Amino acid sequence: MIYNFLFLVATIPVALAHDNGLGLTPQMGWNSWNKYGCNISANDIISAATSIKEKGLLDLGYEYIVMDDCWALKTRDPVTKQIVPDPSKFPNGIKNLSDSIHDMGFKWGMYSSAGKYTCAGYPGSLDYEEIDATTFASWGVDYLKYDNCYNQGRSGTPSESFKRYEVMSKALNSTGRPIFYSLCQWGEDGPWNWASTIANSWRISGDIYDNFNRYDDRCPCESFQCIGLQGFDCSVMNIIRKALPLSQKARDRDGWNDLDSLEVGNGGMTYDEYVTHFTVWAILKSPLMLGNDVSAMSDQDLSIVSNRDLITINQDRGTQPAYSKWTKNYGDSIIILLSGELSNGDWVVALVNGASQQLTYNISMTDVFIDNRIYAEKRWVARDLWTNETSSVNNFIISNVKPHGTQVWRFSKSS
Amino acid sequence: MIYNFLFLVATIPVALAHDNGLGLTPQMGWNSWNKYGCNISANDIISAATSIKEKGLLDLGYEYIVMDDCWALKTRDPVTKQIVPDPSKFPNGIKNLSDSIHDMGFKWGMYSSAGKYTCAGYPGSLDYEEIDATTFASWGVDYLKYDNCYNQGRSGTPSESFKRYEVMSKALNSTGRPIFYSLCQWGEDGPWNWASTIANSWRISGDIYDNFNRYDDRCPCESFQCIGLQGFDCSVMNIIRKALPLSQKARDRDGWNDLDSLEVGNGGMTYDEYVTHFTVWAILKSPLMLGNDVSAMSDQDLSIVSNRDLITINQDRGTQPAYSKWTKNYGDSIIILLSGELSNGDWVVALVNGASQQLTYNISMTDVFIDNRIYAEKRWVARDLWTNETSSVNNFIISNVKPHGTQVWRFSKSS
Amino acid sequence: MIYNFLFLVATIPVALAHDNGLGLTPQMGWNSWNKYGCNISANDIISAATSIKEKGLLDLGYEYIVMDDCWALKTRDPVTKQIVPDPSKFPNGIKNLSDSIHDMGFKWGMYSSAGKYTCAGYPGSLDYEEIDATTFASWGVDYLKYDNCYNQGRSGTPSESFKRYEVMSKALNSTGRPIFYSLCQWGEDGPWNWASTIANSWRISGDIYDNFNRYDDRCPCESFQCIGLQGFDCSVMNIIRKALPLSQKARDRDGWNDLDSLEVGNGGMTYDEYVTHFTVWAILKSPLMLGNDVSAMSDQDLSIVSNRDLITINQDRGTQPAYSKWTKNYGDSIIILLSGELSNGDWVVALVNGASQQLTYNISMTDVFIDNRIYAEKRWVARDLWTNETSSVNNFIISNVKPHGTQVWRFSKSS
Amino acid sequence: MIYNFLFLVATIPVALAHDNGLGLTPQMGWNSWNKYGCNISANDIISAATSIKEKGLLDLGYEYIVMDDCWALKTRDPVTKQIVPDPSKFPNGIKNLSDSIHDMGFKWGMYSSAGKYTCAGYPGSLDYEEIDATTFASWGVDYLKYDNCYNQGRSGTPSESFKRYEVMSKALNSTGRPIFYSLCQWGEDGPWNWASTIANSWRISGDIYDNFNRYDDRCPCESFQCIGLQGFDCSVMNIIRKALPLSQKARDRDGWNDLDSLEVGNGGMTYDEYVTHFTVWAILKSPLMLGNDVSAMSDQDLSIVSNRDLITINQDRGTQPAYSKWTKNYGDSIIILLSGELSNGDWVVALVNGASQQLTYNISMTDVFIDNRIYAEKRWVARDLWTNETSSVNNFIISNVKPHGTQVWRFSKSS
Repeated sequence: MIYNFLFLVATIPVALAHDNGLGLTPQMGWNSWNKYGCNISANDIISAATSIKEKGLLDLGYEYIVMDDCWALKTRDPVTKQIVPDPSKFPNGIKNLSDSIHDMGFKWGMYSSAGKYTCAGYPGSLDYEEIDATTFASWGVDYLKYDNCYNQGRSGTPSESFKRYEVMSKALNSTGRPIFYSLCQWGEDGPWNWASTIANSWRISGDIYDNFNRYDDRCPCESFQCIGLQGFDCSVMNIIRKALPLSQKARDRDGWNDLDSLEVGNGGMTYDEYVTHFTVWAILKSPLMLGNDVSAMSDQDLSIVSNRDLITINQDRGTQPAYSKWTKNYGDSIIILLSGELSNGDWVVALVNGASQQLTYNISMTDVFIDNRIYAEKRWVARDLWTNETSSVNNFIISNVKPHGTQVWRFSKSS
Repeated sequence: MIYNFLFLVATIPVALAHDNGLGLTPQMGWNSWNKYGCNISANDIISAATSIKEKGLLDLGYEYIVMDDCWALKTRDPVTKQIVPDPSKFPNGIKNLSDSIHDMGFKWGMYSSAGKYTCAGYPGSLDYEEIDATTFASWGVDYLKYDNCYNQGRSGTPSESFKRYEVMSKALNSTGRPIFYSLCQWGEDGPWNWASTIANSWRISGDIYDNFNRYDDRCPCESFQCIGLQGFDCSVMNIIRKALPLSQKARDRDGWNDLDSLEVGNGGMTYDEYVTHFTVWAILKSPLMLGNDVSAMSDQDLSIVSNRDLITINQDRGTQPAYSKWTKNYGDSIIILLSGELSNGDWVVALVNGASQQLTYNISMTDVFIDNRIYAEKRWVARDLWTNETSSVNNFIISNVKPHGTQVWRFSKSS
Repeated sequence: MIYNFLFLVATIPVALAHDNGLGLTPQMGWNSWNKYGCNISANDIISAATSIKEKGLLDLGYEYIVMDDCWALKTRDPVTKQIVPDPSKFPNGIKNLSDSIHDMGFKWGMYSSAGKYTCAGYPGSLDYEEIDATTFASWGVDYLKYDNCYNQGRSGTPSESFKRYEVMSKALNSTGRPIFYSLCQWGEDGPWNWASTIANSWRISGDIYDNFNRYDDRCPCESFQCIGLQGFDCSVMNIIRKALPLSQKARDRDGWNDLDSLEVGNGGMTYDEYVTHFTVWAILKSPLMLGNDVSAMSDQDLSIVSNRDLITINQDRGTQPAYSKWTKNYGDSIIILLSGELSNGDWVVALVNGASQQLTYNISMTDVFIDNRIYAEKRWVARDLWTNETSSVNNFIISNVKPHGTQVWRFSKSS
Repeated sequence: MIYNFLFLVATIPVALAHDNGLGLTPQMGWNSWNKYGCNISANDIISAATSIKEKGLLDLGYEYIVMDDCWALKTRDPVTKQIVPDPSKFPNGIKNLSDSIHDMGFKWGMYSSAGKYTCAGYPGSLDYEEIDATTFASWGVDYLKYDNCYNQGRSGTPSESFKRYEVMSKALNSTGRPIFYSLCQWGEDGPWNWASTIANSWRISGDIYDNFNRYDDRCPCESFQCIGLQGFDCSVMNIIRKALPLSQKARDRDGWNDLDSLEVGNGGMTYDEYVTHFTVWAILKSPLMLGNDVSAMSDQDLSIVSNRDLITINQDRGTQPAYSKWTKNYGDSIIILLSGELSNGDWVVALVNGASQQLTYNISMTDVFIDNRIYAEKRWVARDLWTNETSSVNNFIISNVKPHGTQVWRFSKSS
């Protein structure tokens, strides 16, 4: 028997499968990689956080500042075996940086890999989990992004991967400090099946890149049932296809499917494409981690990641991701109908147009409420979450979606 | 060499591979989940059992009353480590409920998971197998449905799954009480290849839902050769496709392919669709576990699950499931010819029409008896097991089947 | 680097990878299952052996008489833990039967399973390997067919399967008696990759049945790259498709791909189909194990399995199987060109017509000798190994093949 | 997060994942197998090295002389357990041969297998790793090609393969002599995911053969995501298809995807086909190991493997392989656009024509610089690396490619 969400919203108290008390909603924040790569420093991080706060994004919930790879020296301290921050990048050390970030009102995240090295070749935490967790806790770390590079062949079965990631989970918990534990394991060995008791979120594919639908040989998998190489340069549509069957696995007491950081603001997609990207990430309850240079962000891009209605849905307590009611071939791609119930009884409904053709479609309420037929007969008021236009709905709603665009509504019961 | 059933019906005494003495025929009964979900109580269970008995279903063989998830408190007893029944749901405890069920003439079944938690987040039995088996036996439990949620990555190879489920098998056996052991492991790692020495039945797919053939993203697998995510919302036709190659693996000395509980009575399918559902479940010798609110069941739905002729075939001792003699594309779906020999020399023959078109088909006796050519030349009398009409058969029999319907006959030798 | 046969025929002494000194050529003989199933007795085996000898088949090389499943009591001796022969079937014990078989000039083979039970539910040898090997050796056993049923989940990776089958290999070797070790593991986990150091032959698919090309749901795999269920009722063409890529893995110092017993004489195929079956088994250097009632065999069927020319090729020392030079779609199926070099410099060339259409085809010598271009320019004399007609070949040879038939020649250099 | 090359060229010092200090660029040299197979001797090796030097190939970088299988006696020394060189082939021992090779200015490579036997049946190093590594070091060995035959089932998961190959890695390192460690494991279990911390290069497919695109049943895998049998007789196009997604995994601090030895000079392909073969091997940064009889090489073939421009790109420090920007169906095959940045800011751009039709194609600079859009707007000068013709490029470049041919340019910024 699979736990069926519909029965249980009202009746079950939250049982936190991973017991650090975090992850009741998907994490929100910013990650340094896309802007800085390895060129990070204390000043850069402070500067980025400042922009994020000034743009109002902290107030909207983007609370984790996560510094990615390349913060360390290439070798551990020969005596303590601790990872050593690069003093040229962090002249006052990382605890000092962490304090500054905290003083600004943010939470502080760091990065390591469940391997011999990090992906960029710095010391990894495999077989050093307790030392590193203790170090992170002593620095006031609130969040760990934990990667999969150089894993010494300890993957290929759920058991191998679980055991490798479980060690750090226990190490983090035993520090006594609640540290959000974010697996970056690319979906290998199906973490949606086993990560919920040890982590707060788990990546489901190779790395995103700033493209809507272009196939790239470096991301050879087109389904979540993929073996051999997860890679990177996975397009938004590639990741969406992988994510659709996995909505069933995300909820507050389990954790979240991580579709990877946001590309909004990086310039590789059109406005409509970024709207699709952000809308789907939000309603599938993916973590919303900004991945751009916020200081240089256009107003239009800022408006996308600042959509309060979608953030509210993403952060709605006690609900699961929307899931696809159908996927249909259309033009040169697919269209997808997504819907999901919200905690106050409202619904989110979206039509994703993966195709390069304009789409006009009558969405049937029987499809929207396919699990909940009684709702199909109710009268709803639909508010478009990008235009804020409101319409009354009965039986069907007409969707007009631009190429690569998405239309999304919040349905409320008509009084 | 694979054990070929045809040789052996008459010559081999039953060697019980799983040695609890149970499962000589597929289990029949009722499971609480579909009606009550987590909203269970002693009174509800008693009430359901009362209806089942009053409707005559106990007399027809539906003997196991199985209470599914959510019967426990969220934490084990800190001293004894036993799972504690929720006193608000079971004010007199579970032993008392078990006694009442037994007094009504039923057998009593319960639920746990081979994981850290049950699917709904209650304590699971992984690493507590002996304590829990002892508790179940002390409560007079006759049947354990044993789920797969939160399994801590101990899956992905037959060896991992076998070892995890074997622990509870041994624990149940060591109680001295015969307890029917029903694996709910969704077909992961091919239980048909390894479960027969430790269990009485094993699920072969993700969870059924009350729909004939609609694809749902939450059940992404379309074949038994599936990895990554078994899910739920699997349609009747989805499960039938997965079951067809597995008939070879079910027999009395091994155990049964569990196609999941019945949806008859839950309102999501037409009469013809429920006829297909029940007929195929019966002749593939799946467990027949009611999953509906029997007290509110229509007479028509009751007549389906009360079909004595199909129940007789399902419970026929010493025979294997029917198997598909061919599968052909037809209209928008497939049609399937199933046949199988019964213990008295009769045969069951069925034509499943998965398509939304009416079907008229001349079924060749050469196909029906493809393993037993000599029978194809005999004269048979065929009785339709839904209309009770009888016809004489030679060479072929004409089948008229409604969309999504199934016609099934019992063939007897013409005198 | 893969060992390339072409270099090495002349230069390498035979290094027996599995070191029992047997299996220098594929085994030939007879197996009891297809005729007797579980209804075996000492008298039946003696009677079968007598027929085989009388028909001249022993002289042709069919030397192993192998008694399959069902020879034991259902429980081991409680004191010695040995398997006990069924005294009703073997009133004088098995050693006595073995002696009789040996006195007739045959070698004596028996059967067990690397599982808790045999496929028919008798005691299996898993975890009793040393006891059983010692028993077999004490009975004068020369050959063990070792099955895969009830393997307790110890499969799914090469490592699991290798370790399970290695135990019996060592046990047999430690008896001091050379016992041909024939794995019946249905191709699970790719035995062609790991069995050669522990066994003399290995099955490559689920069980054969007496049909040329009919798909049966009980044999759901259509490629050697198959997981989940090997099954039985695999047609001749199903097995041939699986075998084609595996020719590279069979040779004297390794062992043989076992395509399963022969069905010739069992009545399910036409003469041309049996010709294809026997020809391909012979030139792919599969074991040639008769599986029929030899006493009731037609002269035509007897002539097929008595083809000295093909037996000579099958038993030709120091050569590998023919392999497919191409496979092409034709009519409703495929046609296959096979060729291979023999130890005296001759070649075997065959065209398999899987289709139900008559085939006339000009076979190019460039294709036949695609690895050995210099041979394509030589002049050859071709003798048809079924009609004995001889023709001179240059550049190409014309093949006329009946539906489902095969034409096979031995090419000799023209003087 | 996957390490993205673009950020890091300039900023990261080389961290050698496999810590023997070798493999900063792909290895170049010659391997004995294709010419000599098992017919090797000290004289043959010396003779081959002499030719290679005389033809100027050592000066071009072909520095490793690697002697493949068949150099040993069939049994180890019973006392020391060392592998014993065959005295009939090496009358003065292997140390003497090694000294001679070194005296000529080459480095010296040998061969073994991570199995019970080598592929040709000689003693393998599995479970003798330390003894053999010590022996190799004592003989002055600089390079070990380490094969996968007879691996005793220790494969099928990354963990099994990693552990098996790690033992020899540690053994080689502990000798104190830097020995280039070249895995010949045919891509099983995805070595690109785990080999970089233990080896300098890893094969990615079954063995190459001297054919451009013919499918051969002995190489049944058509994708890197392949299980069950890697085989041999893999065509150039088969290997290229497997290699395309793997470019992301090769770099100096990790190691190299080994596409197998070169076939140039062996006579099975046309000039244009060899040009494709050599060009793609070079720009994908595969090892360049000659596999032919250099003494008998035509001037044309010699000119191919002597292309200094391509060798320079192959050996360019600090850069990753080119990767495919797109693959398109064309005629009876595919065409592939490859490009990659070089260490001085130049780019290599190539169009591979897998089809048997002549191809004229306008290559868009937007595609070439798809990851680096700013470059697409620059003006480039393109030099054809086979004709040495130079042209100015803006927006697009016209490619005229013969059937099975490849056109490759080095782009430099226009001044």
